[in-house]
Amino acid sequence: MNSNDPKYDLVVRNAKVCTAADVFSADIAITEGKIVCLGHDLDSGRDEIDAAGRVVTPGGVDAHCHMDQPLEPPAKMADGFLTGTRSAACGGTTTVIPFAAQIKGESLKDAVDDYHSRAKGQSCIDYAFHLIVSDPTSDVLDIELPELIADGYTSFKFYMTYDDLKLDDGQILDVLDVARRYGALPMIHAENSDCIKWLTARLKKHGHIAPRYHADARPALVEREAAHRAISLAELVDVQMLIVHVSGQETIEQVQMAKSRGLNIHAETCPQYLFLTADDLGADDSYEGARCVCSPPPRDPENQKSVWRGLKNGLFSVFSSDHAPFYYDAPTGKKLGGEEVSFDHIPNGIPGLETRLPLLYSEGVLTGQIPVSRFVELTSTTPAKLYGLYPQKGTIAIGSDADLVIWDERPVTVSNSVLHHAVDYTPYEGMEINAWPAMTLSRGTVVWNGTTFLGRPDHGQFIARGKPFPPEPS
Amino acid sequence: MNSNDPKYDLVVRNAKVCTAADVFSADIAITEGKIVCLGHDLDSGRDEIDAAGRVVTPGGVDAHCHMDQPLEPPAKMADGFLTGTRSAACGGTTTVIPFAAQIKGESLKDAVDDYHSRAKGQSCIDYAFHLIVSDPTSDVLDIELPELIADGYTSFKFYMTYDDLKLDDGQILDVLDVARRYGALPMIHAENSDCIKWLTARLKKHGHIAPRYHADARPALVEREAAHRAISLAELVDVQMLIVHVSGQETIEQVQMAKSRGLNIHAETCPQYLFLTADDLGADDSYEGARCVCSPPPRDPENQKSVWRGLKNGLFSVFSSDHAPFYYDAPTGKKLGGEEVSFDHIPNGIPGLETRLPLLYSEGVLTGQIPVSRFVELTSTTPAKLYGLYPQKGTIAIGSDADLVIWDERPVTVSNSVLHHAVDYTPYEGMEINAWPAMTLSRGTVVWNGTTFLGRPDHGQFIARGKPFPPEPS
Amino acid sequence: MNSNDPKYDLVVRNAKVCTAADVFSADIAITEGKIVCLGHDLDSGRDEIDAAGRVVTPGGVDAHCHMDQPLEPPAKMADGFLTGTRSAACGGTTTVIPFAAQIKGESLKDAVDDYHSRAKGQSCIDYAFHLIVSDPTSDVLDIELPELIADGYTSFKFYMTYDDLKLDDGQILDVLDVARRYGALPMIHAENSDCIKWLTARLKKHGHIAPRYHADARPALVEREAAHRAISLAELVDVQMLIVHVSGQETIEQVQMAKSRGLNIHAETCPQYLFLTADDLGADDSYEGARCVCSPPPRDPENQKSVWRGLKNGLFSVFSSDHAPFYYDAPTGKKLGGEEVSFDHIPNGIPGLETRLPLLYSEGVLTGQIPVSRFVELTSTTPAKLYGLYPQKGTIAIGSDADLVIWDERPVTVSNSVLHHAVDYTPYEGMEINAWPAMTLSRGTVVWNGTTFLGRPDHGQFIARGKPFPPEPS
Amino acid sequence: MNSNDPKYDLVVRNAKVCTAADVFSADIAITEGKIVCLGHDLDSGRDEIDAAGRVVTPGGVDAHCHMDQPLEPPAKMADGFLTGTRSAACGGTTTVIPFAAQIKGESLKDAVDDYHSRAKGQSCIDYAFHLIVSDPTSDVLDIELPELIADGYTSFKFYMTYDDLKLDDGQILDVLDVARRYGALPMIHAENSDCIKWLTARLKKHGHIAPRYHADARPALVEREAAHRAISLAELVDVQMLIVHVSGQETIEQVQMAKSRGLNIHAETCPQYLFLTADDLGADDSYEGARCVCSPPPRDPENQKSVWRGLKNGLFSVFSSDHAPFYYDAPTGKKLGGEEVSFDHIPNGIPGLETRLPLLYSEGVLTGQIPVSRFVELTSTTPAKLYGLYPQKGTIAIGSDADLVIWDERPVTVSNSVLHHAVDYTPYEGMEINAWPAMTLSRGTVVWNGTTFLGRPDHGQFIARGKPFPPEPS
Repeated sequence: MNSNDPKYDLVVRNAKVCTAADVFSADIAITEGKIVCLGHDLDSGRDEIDAAGRVVTPGGVDAHCHMDQPLEPPAKMADGFLTGTRSAACGGTTTVIPFAAQIKGESLKDAVDDYHSRAKGQSCIDYAFHLIVSDPTSDVLDIELPELIADGYTSFKFYMTYDDLKLDDGQILDVLDVARRYGALPMIHAENSDCIKWLTARLKKHGHIAPRYHADARPALVEREAAHRAISLAELVDVQMLIVHVSGQETIEQVQMAKSRGLNIHAETCPQYLFLTADDLGADDSYEGARCVCSPPPRDPENQKSVWRGLKNGLFSVFSSDHAPFYYDAPTGKKLGGEEVSFDHIPNGIPGLETRLPLLYSEGVLTGQIPVSRFVELTSTTPAKLYGLYPQKGTIAIGSDADLVIWDERPVTVSNSVLHHAVDYTPYEGMEINAWPAMTLSRGTVVWNGTTFLGRPDHGQFIARGKPFPPEPS
Repeated sequence: MNSNDPKYDLVVRNAKVCTAADVFSADIAITEGKIVCLGHDLDSGRDEIDAAGRVVTPGGVDAHCHMDQPLEPPAKMADGFLTGTRSAACGGTTTVIPFAAQIKGESLKDAVDDYHSRAKGQSCIDYAFHLIVSDPTSDVLDIELPELIADGYTSFKFYMTYDDLKLDDGQILDVLDVARRYGALPMIHAENSDCIKWLTARLKKHGHIAPRYHADARPALVEREAAHRAISLAELVDVQMLIVHVSGQETIEQVQMAKSRGLNIHAETCPQYLFLTADDLGADDSYEGARCVCSPPPRDPENQKSVWRGLKNGLFSVFSSDHAPFYYDAPTGKKLGGEEVSFDHIPNGIPGLETRLPLLYSEGVLTGQIPVSRFVELTSTTPAKLYGLYPQKGTIAIGSDADLVIWDERPVTVSNSVLHHAVDYTPYEGMEINAWPAMTLSRGTVVWNGTTFLGRPDHGQFIARGKPFPPEPS
Repeated sequence: MNSNDPKYDLVVRNAKVCTAADVFSADIAITEGKIVCLGHDLDSGRDEIDAAGRVVTPGGVDAHCHMDQPLEPPAKMADGFLTGTRSAACGGTTTVIPFAAQIKGESLKDAVDDYHSRAKGQSCIDYAFHLIVSDPTSDVLDIELPELIADGYTSFKFYMTYDDLKLDDGQILDVLDVARRYGALPMIHAENSDCIKWLTARLKKHGHIAPRYHADARPALVEREAAHRAISLAELVDVQMLIVHVSGQETIEQVQMAKSRGLNIHAETCPQYLFLTADDLGADDSYEGARCVCSPPPRDPENQKSVWRGLKNGLFSVFSSDHAPFYYDAPTGKKLGGEEVSFDHIPNGIPGLETRLPLLYSEGVLTGQIPVSRFVELTSTTPAKLYGLYPQKGTIAIGSDADLVIWDERPVTVSNSVLHHAVDYTPYEGMEINAWPAMTLSRGTVVWNGTTFLGRPDHGQFIARGKPFPPEPS
Repeated sequence: MNSNDPKYDLVVRNAKVCTAADVFSADIAITEGKIVCLGHDLDSGRDEIDAAGRVVTPGGVDAHCHMDQPLEPPAKMADGFLTGTRSAACGGTTTVIPFAAQIKGESLKDAVDDYHSRAKGQSCIDYAFHLIVSDPTSDVLDIELPELIADGYTSFKFYMTYDDLKLDDGQILDVLDVARRYGALPMIHAENSDCIKWLTARLKKHGHIAPRYHADARPALVEREAAHRAISLAELVDVQMLIVHVSGQETIEQVQMAKSRGLNIHAETCPQYLFLTADDLGADDSYEGARCVCSPPPRDPENQKSVWRGLKNGLFSVFSSDHAPFYYDAPTGKKLGGEEVSFDHIPNGIPGLETRLPLLYSEGVLTGQIPVSRFVELTSTTPAKLYGLYPQKGTIAIGSDADLVIWDERPVTVSNSVLHHAVDYTPYEGMEINAWPAMTLSRGTVVWNGTTFLGRPDHGQFIARGKPFPPEPS
């Protein structure tokens, strides 16, 4: 090295570095996409960024998002990897873990292969795949899953509802047992399928088909019941498990009781349970509320408080978007086939990849509700650890990928016009918040500069994941 | 700087750095007692230590320990600052927060002044003082406490038991209110005084005076009741509070319920509740068990499991020693006045400054029960944060004090003969563990090298503490 | 007996007899004040009453009411035994258990003697005395209480609040221990005295002196805390105990947890917690709300629901009036000394002897919320059993006193103008209910005929009570 | 009536009459099988029995027992109505409610008709039928159930386990909805079928086939999970429900939480959960333990204590036998097909009709654990009320059937040699108890005289039942 050559590829100066444990001022030196040095007055980099005393957090890990997931036509996700990861990057997320979903009757490996072909060359940030197991044949249990886990697909989700996905309790025990034996992390969508069907049939019999009845068809006890059952199944198998998208108090209590008994149950929640209520599905029978149809449905202000409490007191381990991108006004989306359909046919889910971090940073950190270290823990470090991405992802530490968010604490009005997904709406339209990423770096490369997306679809790399970190005690 | 001059005072090479969030390999560069750089292949230091891939944690912060605390004669603590901090250092602890205790009828400031005179030039490691408030006169509430808090004594303990210390509920509300208004952290010893007295009188009436009756005089409900009451008082005042030395399941449940309601209640536990039971107070009426007389008393194996569970699942925030150093065989100690005294006159407490970290590291981390990040959190980072020492203490990060422990994972038989306190016993005599500090550094100075204490009594500095970090949301 | 002579003194024909277990049609034959035969077509009585298929319940036992209790002047109870028991009788209550209250520094026996002199010749219905222990000297504990228990004063109340009454925890343990050893039932007023004082001082410091601040000075946690403490003390002593006037959910949960642990804890509630809320203490600073000042204060609609739930699901054992009769507009009463006084000086308590049963029958039984057998259990049978009056009182069974209420299910507007106490208001003024006693019989004598009080002050007899029935297992 | 003629058919003199509420001394006059008069010195009866001051309780109502229920061969119940009801009568039970069980694919009415033909002329005591719904077709839901409920079959059981019986959650919602709309009482067998199958498969795969593995295949969480789910389903439909044969603490907690939320959930337990543990299924792999194979399996001493606690504190509403009579040593019974079969093929259930009352009276009432009124409530009054037999059955009151048990408090060694069922064992062989019926009367007819069965198979009458008493509030 010539003594005049810059020592590093990039130095981010004067950062207020925030990790899941620490807050400290330092320069961050980056070489070959990795964080190589932390300190003051570091030697020069080929590039330099002045963070100007701003908060710098690890790039977000969105451990629950959907994009380009094959669906039964005419439903189709609005976001593929290109727009999905672009949107993520502009909102401060640098790693996504969408789902390679088995179709019943087909191979899980085929689903993975297909999903790779959808992602390849299309992802602007790094990505990994969860699996969705919908058909746990002996082939899947004995051969495909063990091999896929060994190949870095170390988590898989399954459903207690949705006809095309749902596993019965015996199948759930089987897949939990695979998770236990091979050290993967099982994720469960906990809602009681039969209850939903029964309520749906009654609602429709009475002509109640508007979007708002979606909430009536999935009351909190439907989620609570399934959560208790799921926890019992994991307890039986003696394996850790994560319950996705917990919506409120009743399920929180089940998780709490499980933790008190010493069970290794993790819980995830999402922005929609902090910022939306069932009222957003429509106060009357108008179809507008279809935009906010997701499962479990948003609840009420008391449940929002419960979810905030759970974010603060450690009940929740992960804060994800559950980004499920459907157009509102398109035959592939909420107006399925081009029409206003009965609530039970509206494609489920809402977009949120880009807004996840700014919403929580603004309304959680800046309001003093949660410390910034907890913000980092929930949005980056713990998902990275649980899903085997750590220490490559999830922190600002020597040797980790230089995935960084430099925060700008300024007033922002959320509007779909400035978001980067393909979806034609955001449920948070018009919301006034006070923070947005000033810059997002993925492995040392600036992919968002606060105004312009700078990423490239050939930048994102697939990551074969390891086991949950730290490993469960044996 | 001459280019041949070493850049740093000291570089610890090849450390497996463990913080409350992270584990990564790095060199740690230290200048003027501070961590100034983390990275690989750092420039040279005037001194160099090869950590050889060993786990390096932040030095322990023992937030609950007693030394040279004035007592009613003939009781006298065996350890002053010199032997106490020496012992701490040899066990990996680099900061202690003992107690400046107000004597009823006297000034709190006088107690602080007196305690400074006891510490000055005697402490081998850095130290701060908690206050003990035993007489909350209006002078204390309106003048002394606010001034002392402003001067860096940002936490104070009070007692619900012990005649010479105990506050009534109204007094507790008053001091909690001071804590709320001035941002200090209140700590409470929760045991119901009247119950203890009542049981003690009955036990003694029946001639039950041996040490083991100490446990019968303080059953779990005596602690649970006081904890529930203390939590209610803090709830009324709307202030955070820490409950010291929680011994088992019943109190844990109270803390759990408080957290579930969204209260900011912290809990501390100690090694004695993991490794001792009431049986250690003596199976018969022999006096040997006086060694393990402490309050609350150790419980039983089921409660030990509960405490372990609480360490794992986040219920506990702090793991302290509650080091209370009394000779067993001396008129100043357990044989008070030189005699075997009734259980209620045995000086309360057991030594543990030096064994705290090795016991938890060996039996918690190495057995896989708790991750090393949780170990760091419990023994160093969270106490540093709660007690306003962070980020100076409690982590390995740029700008923090270079208080470090380099761990040696090797078989060790605990024996008082190799400990460095003045006490003539350890309750863990003969216990086989698997780890001990290979080296302890205080602000970059080696104070323990694995075999020899190298500290000096003029090294330790008093630390005026800040407010709890992060501050409570306003 | 001449064959033409009536066989019985009185026969109540065609009753729909309701006990705590049963509902059946029968004639009730009465001789010498006792129920001697149940059946159809019974032989004739000297007197006959046609109940016309109406519900007939056992006369109410009001186990918590105050009358002519000596107080510090100028406070004075409006009702003596004459008007108090008259009012009771007209509302269907046939036994009252007011309190002989020890004055600190004086003898408990003297209080009993004094109270007898107040009752003698003044009670229209049968009566017994609870004791109130305010000064548990060794004389009281060792001599007076054991002798009084043996003489039929088998229950005693004590207070955790009120300066002139309150016991500390050690004293409570002492009296609980007497209860355990001599088989008496302890009753506890559970509110934390220090908290109330502390809050009161702060409220008054801010000039908040109107009646409505009474509720702010005694929030639910003040009651919950005391209940948990009281339960812990009873648990320590291993004795049954009754918590009087439970006002809402937080205390209910404490009772529930105690029962789940197998403790023998009973709970009482009162009409004010079903039909009043804190709003009745005044929405503004007007003094009108002084009428509803009682302790604990009424809470809110959610807590009313909790209390109803507790009446239904067995949580509560006893439903009493806590009749505490003070004039609103008199210097002896709510306008103490003739003035509007600060909330903490308003004599505590509200009248309710006469309305207790009609309110619960109308709003509980007739609305279908609670079965009539549960009504009987709560208002008569269980209080009779717990307080050692059973089987003389509390049921309609062979050998029991012929204390009966024949119910008239008709619209009634509650109004003080038709009540028979001396108090100048009822908190339920204007309430529309649907039932009132058509007739009340005390030992076979009609004391209320639905429109007119027919009792005589020399009718009521003092009852020396037995032990709780069934006795606690030994 | 000639004045010399006896006035009554029968008078039981000098009874200590015990009901669910009361204990009193009286003569009981009986005419035409009904209780017509209670009093002292009643006129003479054609027959007279001197109860000699003995406890007389209402005859037991066994609301959960099986006899002559069609099973898949070679399994066959040992008891038909003749021996079953004979056994019941000799143990103090005067009403049984066995099950008319629908076979999948067949009509529920046909099952009822068939079951009538089995009972007709064979029952020594009165009887009613519960229904078992195993195939809730629209015909069953819309026609058969409503008609059968109207005809007096006002309760029906369904299962969450057993392949030939189990309903899925949607079917359960359907039948609960029928119960709600027509006012019937649903009863649920709560165990998670998939868990049992999964565990069974694993146990058998490891060669674990001995009876004791039955307990391992059905751990407590399998029951807890199903109970929580069942409660959730009833909560959704808003209907009362009874959970049969609750075995221990975990399910008790679920019932407790349901009651605390105000749900109308009833719970039943059985003698096997008080007096047996899983150890009775065999400490080794011997087949002897097949005798005690029932579902849920007996648990351990801690759970026994929990069940006792639930009997005392009101958690349980009903105490039944769940008599399921299989020979131990016969090809129709525990040695199915004449062989020692794998645990999952052993016919489930144990005999207990005759021992139910004496066991609880002796070990519950005589030991002081539960008052006799609670005994009556659990074994007779509440089952009669819940199942619509009250007031004809379930009490000693005017107009009720003269079903009586006169108790003899004397030492008895339980032995199958003195029991009257057809089964070749009792699980309580050799147990020393202290009470047995001295006499059982069914509608005024003595069917057991303490030594000899005196009943006749044409005595028992079918009872078309009413709605639960008291009816649920509308």
